[in-house]
Amino acid sequence: MRAKQLSTNQEHSHVIVLDPGDEVVDELTEWADRHGVRAARLTGIGGFRRVTLGFFDPTSRDFVRIPIDRQTEVLALIGDFAMAEDTRRPELHAHVVVGFPDGAARGGHLLAGEVWPTLEVIVTQSPRYLRRRHDPQTGLTLIDLDVGT
Amino acid sequence: MRAKQLSTNQEHSHVIVLDPGDEVVDELTEWADRHGVRAARLTGIGGFRRVTLGFFDPTSRDFVRIPIDRQTEVLALIGDFAMAEDTRRPELHAHVVVGFPDGAARGGHLLAGEVWPTLEVIVTQSPRYLRRRHDPQTGLTLIDLDVGT
Amino acid sequence: MRAKQLSTNQEHSHVIVLDPGDEVVDELTEWADRHGVRAARLTGIGGFRRVTLGFFDPTSRDFVRIPIDRQTEVLALIGDFAMAEDTRRPELHAHVVVGFPDGAARGGHLLAGEVWPTLEVIVTQSPRYLRRRHDPQTGLTLIDLDVGT
Repeated sequence: MRAKQLSTNQEHSHVIVLDPGDEVVDELTEWADRHGVRAARLTGIGGFRRVTLGFFDPTSRDFVRIPIDRQTEVLALIGDFAMAEDTRRPELHAHVVVGFPDGAARGGHLLAGEVWPTLEVIVTQSPRYLRRRHDPQTGLTLIDLDVGT
Repeated sequence: MRAKQLSTNQEHSHVIVLDPGDEVVDELTEWADRHGVRAARLTGIGGFRRVTLGFFDPTSRDFVRIPIDRQTEVLALIGDFAMAEDTRRPELHAHVVVGFPDGAARGGHLLAGEVWPTLEVIVTQSPRYLRRRHDPQTGLTLIDLDVGT
Repeated sequence: MRAKQLSTNQEHSHVIVLDPGDEVVDELTEWADRHGVRAARLTGIGGFRRVTLGFFDPTSRDFVRIPIDRQTEVLALIGDFAMAEDTRRPELHAHVVVGFPDGAARGGHLLAGEVWPTLEVIVTQSPRYLRRRHDPQTGLTLIDLDVGT
């Protein structure tokens, strides 16, 4: 386990409202890029018209894709932004739980999602810097706390 | 997609502990009203003795009600407060995931919930102003970022 | 319902990255103890190699244990730290939703969890003091807002 202080009190929070048809990963990542986000966390609720979840398979070291091609409630969107090692741009890592008309819940790594009717996201931006680095053991890009300010 | 900065560093956070029998939506809304909350976000965990979930049906443009009349764990309560267009009072929008004795998870829009044995909620209050406005397309009240400070 | 202001703007946030094999409750509690955490909240996402969920049974007044001995995505980890009445050390109260390869979701009170490949946790530390006290009615330790600063 490793830890890094992200702030004393110079954090900024933002509300982001996504509109019908917005692609959540693209929109949030573009927003973070435009705003110079280098480290942030987020939570959100709303709805998706369709969503693709992922499950990281420990054997294949790849994501199983779980497409859901119907309306769901976004019950819990939780994630963070850190800087990609190669592009030096903010990269979103988010997981989501979605709900169905009978209340059934499913969830996974958020690969893609099309918003409807809204998605209300709160992003808390830190003045610090978080970087992701390729981890050869897993094939994932993991947060590397030894780098940056 | 639209975005609005909610704070630099003048946010206040509060812990709210709900007691057995408390109705979660009423109690949180009354608290927010008494404290002059105009924009806030929240997370919470605990338990419900009973809860009514909602699923917003895109065809009927109304909430399907999903009553759950038994004890559940509140696994993830995520929401926000914004000002209602008509009443000018804070309105809670929250989604919840609840858990059953075998670990099964269900969830939806939080319509009502009766607490037992506790509900621990952290509210982060912003100095800014968020307003909801009736959206004729969906019939929902959505956050309108073009209004307020 | 009772409420307590946790901060104006002297909160500190931290990112904690757990490594493969780390036991989540032990690691987070030790970190909080070392950092003198007296009140905090947290959210997290990542994965578990195995996890033990709990459901607090209102009749037996004890936790039903739900062991899950396989890889899951950590979809939503939400919790808080408050001081234990007896040990005067920070005690973690967290709930979690986990996801399976087909997107199925389960969840409960977090009793124990072994991380793989990572767990990214954001802890927001408050300058205030929260204490848990044994509640004879339920047998649980609940946050007591009448104590502390």
